[in-house]
Amino acid sequence: GIQRWIADYPPHVIADEITRAEQVAAIMLFRLLDKDRALEVFEELDPTEQQKILSGQRDHAFHELVEAMDPDDRARLLGEAPAKFARRVLAGLSQQEREMTAALLGYPQGSVGRHMSPKAVPVRATGTVTQALRRIRLKGSDAETVYTLPVVDEERRLIGTATLRSLVLADPDQPVADLVDRQALSVPATADAEEAARLMQEANLLGLPVVDSEDRLVGILTIDDAIELIETADTEDVARLAGASPLTGHYLTASVFQVARSRAVWLLLLLVAATLSVNVMQLFEDTLAKVTALALFIPLLVGAGGNAGAQAATSAVRAIAVGEVRARDVLRVAWRELRVGLNLGLMLSVVAFSIGAILVGWSIAAVLGISLVAICAWAAVVGAVMPLVAKRLRIDPAVISAPLVTTLVDATGLIIYFLVAQAVLQF
Amino acid sequence: GIQRWIADYPPHVIADEITRAEQVAAIMLFRLLDKDRALEVFEELDPTEQQKILSGQRDHAFHELVEAMDPDDRARLLGEAPAKFARRVLAGLSQQEREMTAALLGYPQGSVGRHMSPKAVPVRATGTVTQALRRIRLKGSDAETVYTLPVVDEERRLIGTATLRSLVLADPDQPVADLVDRQALSVPATADAEEAARLMQEANLLGLPVVDSEDRLVGILTIDDAIELIETADTEDVARLAGASPLTGHYLTASVFQVARSRAVWLLLLLVAATLSVNVMQLFEDTLAKVTALALFIPLLVGAGGNAGAQAATSAVRAIAVGEVRARDVLRVAWRELRVGLNLGLMLSVVAFSIGAILVGWSIAAVLGISLVAICAWAAVVGAVMPLVAKRLRIDPAVISAPLVTTLVDATGLIIYFLVAQAVLQF
Ligand SMILES: [Mg+2]
Ligand SMILES: [Mg+2]
Ligand SMILES: [Mg+2]
Ligand SMILES: [Mg+2]
Ligand SMILES: [Mg+2]
Ligand SMILES: [Mg+2]
Ligand SMILES: [Mg+2]
Ligand SMILES: [Mg+2]
Ligand SMILES: [Mg+2]
Ligand SMILES: [Mg+2]
Ligand SMILES: [Mg+2]
Ligand SMILES: [Mg+2]
Ligand SMILES: [Mg+2]
Repeated sequence: GIQRWIADYPPHVIADEITRAEQVAAIMLFRLLDKDRALEVFEELDPTEQQKILSGQRDHAFHELVEAMDPDDRARLLGEAPAKFARRVLAGLSQQEREMTAALLGYPQGSVGRHMSPKAVPVRATGTVTQALRRIRLKGSDAETVYTLPVVDEERRLIGTATLRSLVLADPDQPVADLVDRQALSVPATADAEEAARLMQEANLLGLPVVDSEDRLVGILTIDDAIELIETADTEDVARLAGASPLTGHYLTASVFQVARSRAVWLLLLLVAATLSVNVMQLFEDTLAKVTALALFIPLLVGAGGNAGAQAATSAVRAIAVGEVRARDVLRVAWRELRVGLNLGLMLSVVAFSIGAILVGWSIAAVLGISLVAICAWAAVVGAVMPLVAKRLRIDPAVISAPLVTTLVDATGLIIYFLVAQAVLQF
Repeated sequence: GIQRWIADYPPHVIADEITRAEQVAAIMLFRLLDKDRALEVFEELDPTEQQKILSGQRDHAFHELVEAMDPDDRARLLGEAPAKFARRVLAGLSQQEREMTAALLGYPQGSVGRHMSPKAVPVRATGTVTQALRRIRLKGSDAETVYTLPVVDEERRLIGTATLRSLVLADPDQPVADLVDRQALSVPATADAEEAARLMQEANLLGLPVVDSEDRLVGILTIDDAIELIETADTEDVARLAGASPLTGHYLTASVFQVARSRAVWLLLLLVAATLSVNVMQLFEDTLAKVTALALFIPLLVGAGGNAGAQAATSAVRAIAVGEVRARDVLRVAWRELRVGLNLGLMLSVVAFSIGAILVGWSIAAVLGISLVAICAWAAVVGAVMPLVAKRLRIDPAVISAPLVTTLVDATGLIIYFLVAQAVLQF
């Protein structure tokens, strides 16, 4: 039965079931766990779920759970929680844990300081391997990682890092100084957390030392938290790319109102922006009245242009996110996309020309073919350049969403279409 | 100058510059590196770039680079390379490395077997901590990780894992058996690599033991490779969501033709599918001729519906990718999205009604408002349900791209619009 299931399944699986359940069921499920297991499962929950579970606990259990959290997880929980809840958490903490949490909360949201573990295990370059290992045995049981060891001088200034692997494999009498990687990367606590996380990925690090403005060690960013940061950032980008704000909670348990709100802002803005296309249509109402067949192809035409623009925008946003492209590459990108867009436009125009010729005749088919080449080239360039410009202006490139590009390309594409029509059909 | 830069910068930065350079410049830049550094930088390159660099090397350097690679990286390189190149690589390898590489290449593409390191350091549960550490010192220098240690019996069958941390912190005379996590997760070598990688993220693992069909240890998936797998899978999803095939190379150096090809297939399919909307327009040509003002709002209307559908599809695809939603949640999702869509539709219809009333009059405004509610609800449900159905049918959910949903919703939205128009305007 459920008792057996709860004893056998890994904590992340139980955490997942709790997350998918409604609040009352979630709290009941959580109560079935014995104490050690409850702690393990609690650690795996997202902050929203942790709040949900905590608010169903009596004071004693509440404080035990919160006291056992890692300081970085606690800071994340408090960063999202209402003030009253945060006070209840802080009130019950031991002094040491309260101070560590307060220190983390002192760093700006989105900075490495918020996500690092303050419990790094610094070693000294002056001792031997045996001395360093003794120190790790003393301090290591409470630390989040002992695999990347920051090496510091007498004033706690970072000199480099040593790995536990190198210590274990080395001769016990060897000086630690021989094993220090003095070119090891580190970041200031105020640095952007997502960038630090991506740096760890690029450089294949398990731990990244974090320093203050005087290069003194204040903590370490661990790879598990870096992965979470990257996942969250990517989920945000995907939501933004589709023209929605990122949801803070779980897709299945966020309220319908929350989900609707996350999508409404952009839909409304885009609807208003689409009024542009109505204006363009009005501008060319005479043309449209003379050749009503032109109207038939409007959804097809603006659709193709919008799709080409959305593809270019999306690939540019992703290339920026994973670090393949920087703002200064804008001309290189524009030139590439112009050629890609022309290529695509030519292919599409052959097909569209055939469809047009079959359905309505040569002249409208020619209008279609010619406008598609121009629209695709235009869409690809605009779509790819806008995220780079946003990046330069320190706006999130992912706000240049597929629907935003589509809406812009819709209106401008219609202008191209009608101008080509006027030129080809001679009025 | 450049010599200084090359000596001071971390390998991943130099690898990035090499990746961004054209082939000739990349090979020249690589030649400037001294031997140790060349190896470090080479390891950081993507397979496409590794091929580019290798093809510029003479036999001796070529074989040295390839021999020094980790077996999993070598398998990845060979998996993508032309047969002739693969033969040149294999011909120069030592027997041991060749066998390990061949074993990895024996597993299907996309499986864990292809991405694991065969150089795990198994320890025995029967010894003491001191004995285990001695074994790690003997075997560990060549292994990719020594932080997660698979614990095996006499027949190499996996019993569980121990961490190097627990060994270092334990009493040297303690039996290893006390430190073994017997519920540790493991996966078969034929399991899906992306799923294994996401499992490591969920369960916060640095190493995941990989076993054969008889539960015997064959390797270990390390977290750095798991992160790469997730990044690649997410990049693929983002590309597919925008209606493009994933690029294998780097955004800046893939050829224009490659980029165009990755986008053309879907653009063409969508263009042909958009013919549906032309047919719908023809079907209602009389209605359109009687009330030409209806045409004015077509881009706005299909735009809004398409956007609502794209938002729903994108959030469903992402929720599936990160494991928040499974195929069996389809009814729960449909019911949520119906309510979200109605909410959004009501909000949009207020705005659209106002725009319509100002620009052309009440009756068309009413048509707009009513159709928007129906279209948004329909779009949200269709957009979110399709990826789940795809998942059930073992099709990649990400092929339910924003443009695909938009194109479908365009045609069906037009039908709704014209039917509402006929009903409201009474003909
Ligand atoms: Mg902990
Ligand atoms: Mg942490
Ligand atoms: Mg990496
Ligand atoms: Mg990369
Ligand atoms: Mg964490
Ligand atoms: Mg972002
Ligand atoms: Mg190596
Ligand atoms: Mg995790
Ligand atoms: Mg998660
Ligand atoms: Mg590897
Ligand atoms: Mg690797
Ligand atoms: Mg995928
Ligand atoms: Mg559209």
